[in-house]
Amino acid sequence: MNLKEFQVIHRDQGCAARTGVLCTNHGEIETPVFMPVGTLATVKALAPEDLSGMGVGIILANTYHLYLRPGTQVIGKFSGLHRFMNWNGAILTDSGGFQVFSLAALKKISEEGVAFQSHIDGSRHLLTPEKAVEIQAALNSDVAMCLDECIPYPAGRDRAENALLLTTRWAARCKEEAGRRLSPQNALFGIVQGGMYPDLRRASAEGLADIGFDGYAVGGLSVGEPKELMYEMAAATLPVLPEDRPRYAMGIGKPEDLVEFVFRGADMFDCVLPTRNARNGQLFTDFGAVNISNAVHRDSDRPVDESCECPTCRRYSRAYLRHLYTSREILSHRLNTIHNIHYFSNLMKRIRRAIAENRFPAFRRDFLAARQAGIGEEQGENHG
Amino acid sequence: MNLKEFQVIHRDQGCAARTGVLCTNHGEIETPVFMPVGTLATVKALAPEDLSGMGVGIILANTYHLYLRPGTQVIGKFSGLHRFMNWNGAILTDSGGFQVFSLAALKKISEEGVAFQSHIDGSRHLLTPEKAVEIQAALNSDVAMCLDECIPYPAGRDRAENALLLTTRWAARCKEEAGRRLSPQNALFGIVQGGMYPDLRRASAEGLADIGFDGYAVGGLSVGEPKELMYEMAAATLPVLPEDRPRYAMGIGKPEDLVEFVFRGADMFDCVLPTRNARNGQLFTDFGAVNISNAVHRDSDRPVDESCECPTCRRYSRAYLRHLYTSREILSHRLNTIHNIHYFSNLMKRIRRAIAENRFPAFRRDFLAARQAGIGEEQGENHG
Repeated sequence: MNLKEFQVIHRDQGCAARTGVLCTNHGEIETPVFMPVGTLATVKALAPEDLSGMGVGIILANTYHLYLRPGTQVIGKFSGLHRFMNWNGAILTDSGGFQVFSLAALKKISEEGVAFQSHIDGSRHLLTPEKAVEIQAALNSDVAMCLDECIPYPAGRDRAENALLLTTRWAARCKEEAGRRLSPQNALFGIVQGGMYPDLRRASAEGLADIGFDGYAVGGLSVGEPKELMYEMAAATLPVLPEDRPRYAMGIGKPEDLVEFVFRGADMFDCVLPTRNARNGQLFTDFGAVNISNAVHRDSDRPVDESCECPTCRRYSRAYLRHLYTSREILSHRLNTIHNIHYFSNLMKRIRRAIAENRFPAFRRDFLAARQAGIGEEQGENHG
Repeated sequence: MNLKEFQVIHRDQGCAARTGVLCTNHGEIETPVFMPVGTLATVKALAPEDLSGMGVGIILANTYHLYLRPGTQVIGKFSGLHRFMNWNGAILTDSGGFQVFSLAALKKISEEGVAFQSHIDGSRHLLTPEKAVEIQAALNSDVAMCLDECIPYPAGRDRAENALLLTTRWAARCKEEAGRRLSPQNALFGIVQGGMYPDLRRASAEGLADIGFDGYAVGGLSVGEPKELMYEMAAATLPVLPEDRPRYAMGIGKPEDLVEFVFRGADMFDCVLPTRNARNGQLFTDFGAVNISNAVHRDSDRPVDESCECPTCRRYSRAYLRHLYTSREILSHRLNTIHNIHYFSNLMKRIRRAIAENRFPAFRRDFLAARQAGIGEEQGENHG
């Protein structure tokens, strides 16, 4: 396989789910895959070897944050993020657009790009499609993303349409700049917008496919819309994306969302949920979240999940994890994050196996039923 | 060698320094040794495998903190600290006295013990010599410490004398209780007090030796006194402690203090310095402290210390460590702590080698000269 190439390995016979391999300059990535978020060139609380030890082969880093701190000049001195953070796996970077729209101050959008003030020191910057590619080239991202205009939910049809048209024009400029800037080994993905309007989503997907990208992302979901609407947009968008390219569902999601999106044909995911919830003492299991601060765990010598093979569950009790959490010990963040990342990583492995064995629809049904039963009730000593 | 036994292996021919082995139920500890502080059943920011990977064989835990949180009932359910925190090395616990005197509210001291209020929730407790032993028995400490009265600096002679006499009477009660409570595999050390009065220090040492302990600690130093006075007290105390038992300098110290105390015959040390300074971005080297937040490290691809073989120096640049520190990333604490604990651990290894080769006085001279040259000036790109 060539670098940047994506190959569909197997299509589940009962649904749109598929397994594949994305070939990058930093390893081959089996899909469907979940990418832990490493905003500032570190997946919070973990070292690279923690990730590779759990079979993680690709992470996401945030262009906006890294551009502001430590800046491309510093990372450029290390020829990119990999050597800077000592991570030999693959890295996907977002374009910076989403954070500009959600974090920065005094945003002003024009055909040229988006002007904003840093949320850290108020300094002024202009993020253009060309600049987004230039920064990601300096980061040496294995997968770079086009700059897109992100709109809030709800948004009227005109707003959504204008944003998708601008996003498509920006995508064309990104592709052109990528030809000049990006290493030929590195991929560039386009991002589908279109709000909550199925026909706009389709138009966006077609516009991007006409330009031609190494992969396609579904943007603008999980922004506050009802879950059913999100699944509807996934169903409207994923099937019209080029069949032979990876499909990336940005910012997705909860375990049940991953299953639902895979069912509809998505290949790649990222979300802060496993890392952020870990730092809040929320641990993922098939039977719902374990809230480790709960007094019921006070002297429990059981692991968080008897069936889990992560380093945290193999070595530490709920009582110890609760003690670390309630004492605000730093180790708490690491052990909790290891568990959650392992949960997401292992879930994707189970998903890939189910697809390979043509039983993903049954896997989905059983998984959602177990989650349904477990979610909502606090899981304590009563389980297992 | 029997458990609890201490054996002097080699005496340096030029000074009082010596190497030895302390045999515990959780491994043989080569001395002189530095014990990282794991206050709340975790050496802050590290996992047990981080410690064992650096050759750390013994850590210190704080009885006062663990008694209040999570409490002996929880730790007792795990048959002690080792299984609770998944640490298979040895553990020394202090008696709780020092923290009661420095942290708790409304302390009231009597012949019976010291009454206090928890600094966490205001609950009332009475720490007696018997109780201190009982708690440490529940923690299953490999080395338990007698309860002592800690006095502030400066303190008048009467105050110092009364405290040492009370400490000696408490020590006798601790030994008696240890016979009833402590596992026969676990050691009990007495603590020398006596303020800054050499004759009181001697009297304290003799009183404890008459009772007879598995080891002897020098307490009440590094409490604000001038450095010369501290060394003077070490010189007055260490030589009068039983030759065939380990000598533990509590709360010591800076790298140069370790060298000076070993020179005067000390075998064991503990201090929060490497862990606390790590979290403040201060990294130890033979050539002085590297302040990792300093802008001079902004794009440096050099390790903190070219000659250091710790996992942090082998894998990460100053630029990355500075980025993590200034971004307040959790990983910063872990990587910095690994470096500092490795520095202390490796320093003790170099000290043991120098003693074994009868060249400790020369090692001391060279070490102190290099520190002297390095300390005070910020170490940046100019070195190495």
